[in-house]
Amino acid sequence: MATLGALKKHKVTIVGSGNWGTTMSKLVAENTKANPTLFEEVVQMWVYEEEITIPKESRHYDAGSELANKPQKLSQLVNSLHENVKYLPNITLPPNVIANPDIVDACKNSTILIFVLPHQFIARVCDNLKGNIVPYARAISCTKGVDVSEKGIRLLSESIGVRLSIYCGALSGANIASEIAQEKYSETTVAYDPPPLDSRNPTPKGSPTSSQVDLIAPSKAIPSSRSARLQPLPSEYPPLSHENVRRLFHRPYFHVRMVSDVAGVSLSGALKNIVALAAGFVDGLGWGDNAKAAVMRVGILEMVAFGKSFFADSVHTSTFTEESCGVADVITSCMGGRNFRCAKMAVQRGISIDEVERTELNGQKLQGTSTAYEVNSFLRSMGKEEEFPLFTAVFNILEGKAKPEQIPDLIEPKD
Amino acid sequence: MATLGALKKHKVTIVGSGNWGTTMSKLVAENTKANPTLFEEVVQMWVYEEEITIPKESRHYDAGSELANKPQKLSQLVNSLHENVKYLPNITLPPNVIANPDIVDACKNSTILIFVLPHQFIARVCDNLKGNIVPYARAISCTKGVDVSEKGIRLLSESIGVRLSIYCGALSGANIASEIAQEKYSETTVAYDPPPLDSRNPTPKGSPTSSQVDLIAPSKAIPSSRSARLQPLPSEYPPLSHENVRRLFHRPYFHVRMVSDVAGVSLSGALKNIVALAAGFVDGLGWGDNAKAAVMRVGILEMVAFGKSFFADSVHTSTFTEESCGVADVITSCMGGRNFRCAKMAVQRGISIDEVERTELNGQKLQGTSTAYEVNSFLRSMGKEEEFPLFTAVFNILEGKAKPEQIPDLIEPKD
Repeated sequence: MATLGALKKHKVTIVGSGNWGTTMSKLVAENTKANPTLFEEVVQMWVYEEEITIPKESRHYDAGSELANKPQKLSQLVNSLHENVKYLPNITLPPNVIANPDIVDACKNSTILIFVLPHQFIARVCDNLKGNIVPYARAISCTKGVDVSEKGIRLLSESIGVRLSIYCGALSGANIASEIAQEKYSETTVAYDPPPLDSRNPTPKGSPTSSQVDLIAPSKAIPSSRSARLQPLPSEYPPLSHENVRRLFHRPYFHVRMVSDVAGVSLSGALKNIVALAAGFVDGLGWGDNAKAAVMRVGILEMVAFGKSFFADSVHTSTFTEESCGVADVITSCMGGRNFRCAKMAVQRGISIDEVERTELNGQKLQGTSTAYEVNSFLRSMGKEEEFPLFTAVFNILEGKAKPEQIPDLIEPKD
Repeated sequence: MATLGALKKHKVTIVGSGNWGTTMSKLVAENTKANPTLFEEVVQMWVYEEEITIPKESRHYDAGSELANKPQKLSQLVNSLHENVKYLPNITLPPNVIANPDIVDACKNSTILIFVLPHQFIARVCDNLKGNIVPYARAISCTKGVDVSEKGIRLLSESIGVRLSIYCGALSGANIASEIAQEKYSETTVAYDPPPLDSRNPTPKGSPTSSQVDLIAPSKAIPSSRSARLQPLPSEYPPLSHENVRRLFHRPYFHVRMVSDVAGVSLSGALKNIVALAAGFVDGLGWGDNAKAAVMRVGILEMVAFGKSFFADSVHTSTFTEESCGVADVITSCMGGRNFRCAKMAVQRGISIDEVERTELNGQKLQGTSTAYEVNSFLRSMGKEEEFPLFTAVFNILEGKAKPEQIPDLIEPKD
């Protein structure tokens, strides 16, 4: 639609090159090649440069070569081998993925920035990019999580948008990167509520109501100040409608559903990790599949309630109960995700999650535990702990103030 | 509420004594004892009489006894041992469960009949009961399934109601009987849309709208003719409001949510078995948790669409997406249920489900396969196969006309 007459094409950069970032580069590059009227074929992938030696188990390891066991730059390896041997081994990348260690150069003139970075690097990378991108660029955050402080709660997509003064949507789903890299079938949800001039399509298909960007700044969240500064996409570019954004991500093995609920998609990705801990606790008790399914169901409804309470203007129940980012991601996370497995292990061994993190994860913190603490400190400050009995139970179990066995009592509705 | 002044108490009969029926007797009897103003303490459990010998592994087997290895009547064994050694071994039943092999006597003067029978026995049992129950009795069907014929589709609760000229609700959830019998935590959904005079409470708490009984006779389903004949519950009895029905089922380990959507609850219990087959096919391919979660999500939405298409007046989306009978039961069924396991095995071994049924189940048919065939014949007669691509894909795979590998393509929305 509406691509005839477009003089320019969208340049796409993947900001990040870990397991998920490299996978995203692969599928996006397949799509830029398949949609030459919309996108420039070359996809830049920003690589946090490091020196690595090709692992001995790699198909590219050649003991006879003079480069064997010699450290080489990761970006150069990606570009010569068309593989990220460190973070996504054994997956061939399309030749139109170009690794670039210079963040500013990688994003220069890009109209679409796809953020796939660990949470803690986002602020620094945005600081480097600030002022060095086209002012009408649009972003999609594939990183899951929320920023919580005394001031309130902010979606990661919001943080990116505010720091760069651009619009930022979100992608989240039941997505294990290595499975997608192998082209095993999965689904995802992309939330993109396009600024009206971008889509040239006032009511995008499948979107409840098109809305202004500042809709995602809810009453209880940190207010956004950027909508006034948002620059429209120049008309020489193909519009960034739901249809065209979908073409950037959708593959035969990666089915995309577009929604407009950025807050719902972002919250799902963060809150499901608390639910996975609860499911792990109950499963660790040996209570069986009924109990686990019950906890998952209650968890999904608390995710809905959280969205409705604090992002009332923009959140739709169906994002949590009907989309891949909601119900399907909860299912995947509670079948075998890391939060689930560690919580289950803690109960089975009679030790704290803290101890599991120390002994099994080299002290690395689980996403679920940090989110549980952040969400609890936010709920407490709002005086709303009681309205979220499962989230509160998980926090209290982590704190040693409640036991997994109490979960049924704690989450039973009081009449 | 409103129990003061009630002169009579409800007498409760469990119609059925298999694994699930005996479990139901246990928990209902715990509740009749705990709520003496509402219910008569004794709970009758109708037992299809058979002669059994106590299994050697039973805690009640006594090699020295003269009764060892001698066939005894199941009903007498239940009443003397307070255990159903054949169908629910090692679970002690409360002494107020009384097994009764005479269906008419067991239901005499009962105002609440709880049906927990295999699908195929329901018609015959209702024929025996017809004319032998109080005309204002109320029923709850715990049997999952629908009756499909050329005439249309009918809920089992409808079949029971029509055959006995009484009102019939439904109970369904993520409920593995043996786990509940062991008092492991789980949840369930009870749908009861009480005839107005029964509840003496025109808008039951938690119910979207109270409605007449004939609301559950949808346009595309076989019309019900019984509403005219329905007799109100005499005012000497405590009202059968949502609150009082909940007291009959809710336990600390068995959390009940009341809804009014009988069609949604009944359909969930039947249709989830088709979804479980699809999840098993995909899991058998080794496609991982993303793919399985995607199929489950699409399956839940087809369950919603089925309800909305054919039971539009009464079905609520939330019954499928938010209640135990919907999302939670789909999860449980797709984690380890029989339909899931057999479908997975068929794909892994490269054989048909038919062959799995023959070799692993002694030729017994899976609920999912018969439901898939019935639902497909109904959809075909309505010209609606294409609107239910997952249900149709499962049917075609069972028929050998499609392959599990095609599921992603077959369920991809056509734009």
